[in-house]
Amino acid sequence: MTGLILFVHGARDPRWAVPFERLRDLIAARSPDIPVEIAFLEHAKPDLTQAAIDVAATGSRRIKVVPLFFGRGGHLREDFPRQLAVAQARLPDVEFAVTDAAGEDDGVLDALATFALEAPATRTTVEVKPK
Amino acid sequence: MTGLILFVHGARDPRWAVPFERLRDLIAARSPDIPVEIAFLEHAKPDLTQAAIDVAATGSRRIKVVPLFFGRGGHLREDFPRQLAVAQARLPDVEFAVTDAAGEDDGVLDALATFALEAPATRTTVEVKPK
Repeated sequence: MTGLILFVHGARDPRWAVPFERLRDLIAARSPDIPVEIAFLEHAKPDLTQAAIDVAATGSRRIKVVPLFFGRGGHLREDFPRQLAVAQARLPDVEFAVTDAAGEDDGVLDALATFALEAPATRTTVEVKPK
Repeated sequence: MTGLILFVHGARDPRWAVPFERLRDLIAARSPDIPVEIAFLEHAKPDLTQAAIDVAATGSRRIKVVPLFFGRGGHLREDFPRQLAVAQARLPDVEFAVTDAAGEDDGVLDALATFALEAPATRTTVEVKPK
């Protein structure tokens, strides 16, 4: 069985992760047989290795890692491969496979374009407060 | 006419912005009458004020700002309102309106779930290189 890890950046504010928790629950509802965990590059737990240990504990010998990043900068080009190597060393019997970054997917870009064009906008969504 | 600003994080690696450039072009193709610019929170140019100046120069008196962030952490809760206040002060006659963060949109989350479940994954997408 292939497990799934949603690899995200992380932030100090725990509210930052809410959309990813919704996404994880959405994936679990659509594919209840696939173990799915969120892993954070920094600022939050679990990290990639711990998430992989948790997914492998469900019996997955193959883990698909999905980088939920828009663009491919230093985090994906440098930090991620290092963290993946650490996870692989910790779990030598697990086969890790990696997708493109989410922002490279045509379906995701199409949804973003629709969102950008059609989402309602208000002045009150953020509080405008000069420093 | 309402103009559009895609507000993104930014990164030192210019390749990071490629998906956003594709998204801007996709939006321009779908809605050629809407002026659309990318604005960077940090690490790249233009910033929000300069992008707003560019959009306003096309004749837009209303600018819809779309935060292309997944989650709502310190960048959106603190940095963005400050930068928006600076842009508003520079362009007092322009009405700024703000959407939710992209990651809060059901359509975007649905596309991300499909991507996570269906995207092909390979071991060769990233080079695994221990530090």
